[in-house]
Amino acid sequence: MLPTWYTNYKKFIDNSIKLFLDEYLNPAIIPAKAGIYKKKDYDKLIDPQIKSEDDNIYSEWQIICFSKPLNDFKEIIYYATNSWKRVRAILALEVYLNLTNQKLEDIKQDNDIVKVCVALEFIHAYSLLHDDLPCMDNDEYRRGQLTVWKKYGETNAVLCGDLLNTLSFEILSTIKDNEKSKKIINLISRATSIYGMIWWQIEDIYFEHNINELDLSLIESLHNKKTWKLIEASVLAWMILAKDYGIPASVWIYKKDYDNLIDPRIKYEDDKIGISQEWQMYLNLSSFWQNIWLAFQVKDDILDVEWTFEETGKSVWWEKKWFVHFIWLEKSKDYLEKLSIEALKNISDLKSEKLDFLVEYIKNRNS
Amino acid sequence: MLPTWYTNYKKFIDNSIKLFLDEYLNPAIIPAKAGIYKKKDYDKLIDPQIKSEDDNIYSEWQIICFSKPLNDFKEIIYYATNSWKRVRAILALEVYLNLTNQKLEDIKQDNDIVKVCVALEFIHAYSLLHDDLPCMDNDEYRRGQLTVWKKYGETNAVLCGDLLNTLSFEILSTIKDNEKSKKIINLISRATSIYGMIWWQIEDIYFEHNINELDLSLIESLHNKKTWKLIEASVLAWMILAKDYGIPASVWIYKKDYDNLIDPRIKYEDDKIGISQEWQMYLNLSSFWQNIWLAFQVKDDILDVEWTFEETGKSVWWEKKWFVHFIWLEKSKDYLEKLSIEALKNISDLKSEKLDFLVEYIKNRNS
Repeated sequence: MLPTWYTNYKKFIDNSIKLFLDEYLNPAIIPAKAGIYKKKDYDKLIDPQIKSEDDNIYSEWQIICFSKPLNDFKEIIYYATNSWKRVRAILALEVYLNLTNQKLEDIKQDNDIVKVCVALEFIHAYSLLHDDLPCMDNDEYRRGQLTVWKKYGETNAVLCGDLLNTLSFEILSTIKDNEKSKKIINLISRATSIYGMIWWQIEDIYFEHNINELDLSLIESLHNKKTWKLIEASVLAWMILAKDYGIPASVWIYKKDYDNLIDPRIKYEDDKIGISQEWQMYLNLSSFWQNIWLAFQVKDDILDVEWTFEETGKSVWWEKKWFVHFIWLEKSKDYLEKLSIEALKNISDLKSEKLDFLVEYIKNRNS
Repeated sequence: MLPTWYTNYKKFIDNSIKLFLDEYLNPAIIPAKAGIYKKKDYDKLIDPQIKSEDDNIYSEWQIICFSKPLNDFKEIIYYATNSWKRVRAILALEVYLNLTNQKLEDIKQDNDIVKVCVALEFIHAYSLLHDDLPCMDNDEYRRGQLTVWKKYGETNAVLCGDLLNTLSFEILSTIKDNEKSKKIINLISRATSIYGMIWWQIEDIYFEHNINELDLSLIESLHNKKTWKLIEASVLAWMILAKDYGIPASVWIYKKDYDNLIDPRIKYEDDKIGISQEWQMYLNLSSFWQNIWLAFQVKDDILDVEWTFEETGKSVWWEKKWFVHFIWLEKSKDYLEKLSIEALKNISDLKSEKLDFLVEYIKNRNS
């Protein structure tokens, strides 16, 4: 039984995504003058379900928004971004609220944290869409539902993934403060390009054909690459956004010793800041995310092995259950226990019952 | 026979892309402390071709940069971003140089205009990679060379496209000025997401299965969506970058009449600015790009029909040659002539022999 606050957090994330898409895909503002066309020229593009007040002219914007192919595609976007657990967004939101001494009720829809949450969920959805493709993992089911390519075809799955990838940067570019917007885009793009998510995918494919070269430390490293880089970027993003609440963003940006975290192409002059309290908090939060995420993956693999399709809603591809494959079930459970204890230690300073609950929840969940 | 300046421009773009990738994929800066591992734990990931000076420890950064799977993947990235005509980047560069009264020799590698050029070429390459996939256009050849999926497999083509999409935003996030960086990312992401490039792809797929619904004005609209939105964003990007040279970026951002160009989610208070000289210049340049790009597409279709594979290096899919399909060869040539004349008119104020040459070149090229 999940506590009320958890359900409320999830509802908030789900609702934020729905509100964003509703507005984005059905914009209220339609420019009057730009790109006016005779209706007849574009009749075939307009969804016949939609009646226009003025039958004589259509703006280009209307033609796009009400076009039949686009209307059909909207369904795919909603499907592709719906029904995830949102664990990552919930964790992120709680860390942000904890750091800034706010409650969920304080967060309005136009808060930049909402934009970051939505963008991260879109990147997550895009990675799953492409990951499930026949030429990648060839998965037909995810959480009991048909995968996007299986339901809507490969073409639409590729396109919708591409869209969600690009759209996440479009959203991040609407963060109010220019400097914060640019920094967060830089962090998240790097976490999802070759030294992050894409690198993991490349290794993943390599080891599918060279599974005998794998060992436990490599698997850990691979799991880290896949999502941890993105999560690390998220932690930094929360800290950047939380700057106005007294946490200096400078702690992460001037530290040459950690320049694998920052873009080597951006040069900084100041290297004077030491390991401040805030930096220590970042390190703790980073370790927390790493541990909690690894725990999440290990639990996923255990569930896949222990449960059948009907119970977890996922198709099991045994070869990919690397953790279980390598260290077997009992060892996996010990490892999960160890990771959970570490994660709890990492966040002990925050004294958040909600975060403590989430660690236990991830460890004990049945689906 | 192409003039020397053209060859120099192309060399400059090619070289910029090569320099960027060389540095990006083989970074000189390797953090000393972060993520140190025993070499033996990661031996299998390191490319055996590469000898390390210190056989005992490897940083995480080294492991990524020298990993065998990544080394193999580098070849794909170079292949996917190589050998294009670069016409779009050359045009863009010349417009920027003309507006700012500079010469090619004045442009250094760390100039923001170079970043925008590289990012746009990467987006172009990403769109081609995914467009050529079996589940999309199923093209096996492009300019006489095997397409990426045909040469390196579908998985790698999907991944490399994803990488280039993300990477373009990573590059744009290193533009020095925060405001310019954010604005350009906003423009280019919107031009490539659902109200731009992706929308075109959606319509494209729709009309492949409903070709009888097509007519000439629709084809024009479709061609516009595919690349013109991106090119329009590019024009605005050049103007933003050229701001320091006396062209106010504000002309494009406060004009409510043109708010299909700006993000409706960003609210602006000022609507006082009229059609200034700069705005007129933007309008002219936009029309120029639209005309020149449509001319480029029409010429492509004519070439595909007139020439055989050996001469153009492309496989011909007759059904897709919409212009020629609909208005036939002679009409296509008239249309091309009309577009070229319009394009020349649009740029008459700039008095650039180079731009005039490019218009003629696009019209008369044989490949």
